[in-house]
Amino acid sequence: MEPDPILPVTKTLAEFVADLAWQKLPPAVQEEGRLAIADTIGGALAAVNEPAARAVMAIVEGETGPSAIWGTALRTTPRNAALVNGAMAHAHDIDDTNPSMRGHPSCPVVPAIFALAAKTGASGQELVTAYVAGVEIATKLGRAVNMPHYNKGWHTTLTLGTLGAAAACARLLRLDAGKTAIALAIAGSRAGGLVANFGTMTKPTHSGFAAEGGVTAALLAQAGTTANPAALECKNGFFDLFAGLEQVQPALALEALNERFDLVDPGNIYKQYPTCSLTHCAIDMLLDGVAEGAIKPDQIASIDCGVGYRCVSTLPYHDARTGLEGKFSMEYCLAAALVHGQVTFAEFEDEKVRSPAIAAMQRKINLYTHPELTTPESVPYDFTDIVIKHQDGTVFHGREQKAKGDPAKRWTLQQFKDKFVRCAAGGMGAEAAARLWDDLHRLDALPAGQPKGLI
Amino acid sequence: MEPDPILPVTKTLAEFVADLAWQKLPPAVQEEGRLAIADTIGGALAAVNEPAARAVMAIVEGETGPSAIWGTALRTTPRNAALVNGAMAHAHDIDDTNPSMRGHPSCPVVPAIFALAAKTGASGQELVTAYVAGVEIATKLGRAVNMPHYNKGWHTTLTLGTLGAAAACARLLRLDAGKTAIALAIAGSRAGGLVANFGTMTKPTHSGFAAEGGVTAALLAQAGTTANPAALECKNGFFDLFAGLEQVQPALALEALNERFDLVDPGNIYKQYPTCSLTHCAIDMLLDGVAEGAIKPDQIASIDCGVGYRCVSTLPYHDARTGLEGKFSMEYCLAAALVHGQVTFAEFEDEKVRSPAIAAMQRKINLYTHPELTTPESVPYDFTDIVIKHQDGTVFHGREQKAKGDPAKRWTLQQFKDKFVRCAAGGMGAEAAARLWDDLHRLDALPAGQPKGLI
Repeated sequence: MEPDPILPVTKTLAEFVADLAWQKLPPAVQEEGRLAIADTIGGALAAVNEPAARAVMAIVEGETGPSAIWGTALRTTPRNAALVNGAMAHAHDIDDTNPSMRGHPSCPVVPAIFALAAKTGASGQELVTAYVAGVEIATKLGRAVNMPHYNKGWHTTLTLGTLGAAAACARLLRLDAGKTAIALAIAGSRAGGLVANFGTMTKPTHSGFAAEGGVTAALLAQAGTTANPAALECKNGFFDLFAGLEQVQPALALEALNERFDLVDPGNIYKQYPTCSLTHCAIDMLLDGVAEGAIKPDQIASIDCGVGYRCVSTLPYHDARTGLEGKFSMEYCLAAALVHGQVTFAEFEDEKVRSPAIAAMQRKINLYTHPELTTPESVPYDFTDIVIKHQDGTVFHGREQKAKGDPAKRWTLQQFKDKFVRCAAGGMGAEAAARLWDDLHRLDALPAGQPKGLI
Repeated sequence: MEPDPILPVTKTLAEFVADLAWQKLPPAVQEEGRLAIADTIGGALAAVNEPAARAVMAIVEGETGPSAIWGTALRTTPRNAALVNGAMAHAHDIDDTNPSMRGHPSCPVVPAIFALAAKTGASGQELVTAYVAGVEIATKLGRAVNMPHYNKGWHTTLTLGTLGAAAACARLLRLDAGKTAIALAIAGSRAGGLVANFGTMTKPTHSGFAAEGGVTAALLAQAGTTANPAALECKNGFFDLFAGLEQVQPALALEALNERFDLVDPGNIYKQYPTCSLTHCAIDMLLDGVAEGAIKPDQIASIDCGVGYRCVSTLPYHDARTGLEGKFSMEYCLAAALVHGQVTFAEFEDEKVRSPAIAAMQRKINLYTHPELTTPESVPYDFTDIVIKHQDGTVFHGREQKAKGDPAKRWTLQQFKDKFVRCAAGGMGAEAAARLWDDLHRLDALPAGQPKGLI
């Protein structure tokens, strides 16, 4: 059999990015871009005082420039702002995910383009277009490299996220296809990110690294840095090193460009809870079950929770000691939902994670890999299965495939706005937060430099 | 058989770094530190106007701070200075290598610590100690992961270099062992670097990424960012993702800490020519052969050049079109030595690479992988074998394992100084360059902030 010809992935994707324009975007894609940008910024504004964000802010202290650090009056250089806002956007882990990427598409891209827009000027239409370009590159490359890439232990938010941010910034800088390909090639050399750092402050910082790496790659390409214009697909290139040339399916990265946007198909999944997305179906079931009276927290004898095999590596904290570990602990998230009746930012304060009531509930939990979900091939069919036995003999049984916020369980506009206000109100008050959401929801109508305080 | 216990590599190396002190360094290590620092800075000063350096300088334009951009009057932020000077230090590829690392140990480390010293203050003794800490971490981790890591296609100057720079910066910031471990873990998430970008301006920029990544990781650890304190050795950690847990030999990273310094054993190899080190034995033989009359360039009928198998991937340019490609072309380096009688910076101007005389000489060259050098195991025994047949029937045969500048062919102090002056004189004149080398050669005697213009 003849070997497959090497597809010009870098070049083709670069042409797609360089040619993308607001007018080419289907209305549903335009709307999704506005919503995702707003949702990302909301999550970031909730995290201004998170230790992970504060540490990154500390290392750029005194380094002034044109770009806003969200939620503060500080301005810093574009690369610094991308780093800080990127870390902030992922600090609560309440930002969106996308199944094609198997990671977080927006938390590197949105900070990167807002940071750069302060330097270059960009209309709201340009920002949304750049956002779409970034997410499409990260997700389409995700199609090509996943699941092998994800399964090896790479944090896709930093690997694919750097490429997404670079693509978005290349679009914002109006680089031609040739220089956009170079930006992608440079971004390939900036990619990295160890899943071993999950459950620590370095995990959200990865998103800052990706945002900053994307800005850097695009600026370097603009400034004339050369790179291998086939760096994604060639030997010793991105596919080869981050997944293995024999493992990837490059054609999937090029499928249906300009026709199917991964942003809406399969679509971003928005997060209600500031935890790993793999915990969300379970939390939904528990909160609903308690609300409906089908689960009686003070009567629980045992909880069996069957999950997909990815949880073994992604949710390694079976006895979380910190809020950040709690975000990657199915046991803690289940216990918090049952003990506190909610899973909000407050449930991830360290002392709450270590409370005796939580420990007592966690002892009743049996987490296991469901026998139907033991292989990489089962990932698209992932579900969470919950069986709760009560002391009075009643049993609750729930099984969910999709959490609220998934395209299959689409939020209303009001739910998007409510989440944003919940996130942003702490810093600016609920009224200003609501107005800011309204502005972001008509971002394409705003002139360059708006909304103030974000650019 | 019981599996080997997991060695606490991150923790042990962090303790080594935190405990390292000038007084603990054997005199030979102190001296090698001074020489390597001077040699690195010399190479960087030669590259101030190189396009790769200029592009990086352009993207930080106007971002002022306390740290010197070498060879200019500009000052920028520490992270920017690490990025720019890092790229500059590797732009000519005339900076040192180390066999344990299979890459360039100094070009990320020296820029990182000089950039940071402008912010923190550091005596000359502190700088040399931090340098040694950085090189030892990069080389000792190199022992553990090579050759599998190198063979996969990672650019060790960016992967291991980021870890080395982080260690050096952690030492300079006087982080304790716990925070030094965190700096290493964060650096593990910043590591990356595609060999696919060799022969382009992105290759030297990798060194800037490594320097900046190291500064960033150390500053974040200082600022309180948390990370996995076993991130090098654990599942989904650095060893796992960059080489494969089953491929690495973690014990080699911990062997003879504080006793054998890789900086002197096996020792850094210093470069005479601004080209990939794999070309140096061949260039030495040709230049010596011509000087001695054993090779007659205008009489050459054919050139057979047998090399180790690494050259296939590391020297891919068989018909180089640019100076940067020429640095990674055995054919061009051989032709340049024969046509021009020297291999200096001037030989890597693009138009020289494309000259007809070079093309004519290259047509006579047969490059092949020597039958004794076809496996990874043969790397330590690498040699270059040259057979030149002349039209008059005479034959030149040379075989070399070690280039001049290797510890086995140690330069004199005068040769170190001569190279430095050759490199630095263009910007400052030969006299000032000679004085600067004298200063750097007594760096441990200088107070903080000296030599001026470099910190």
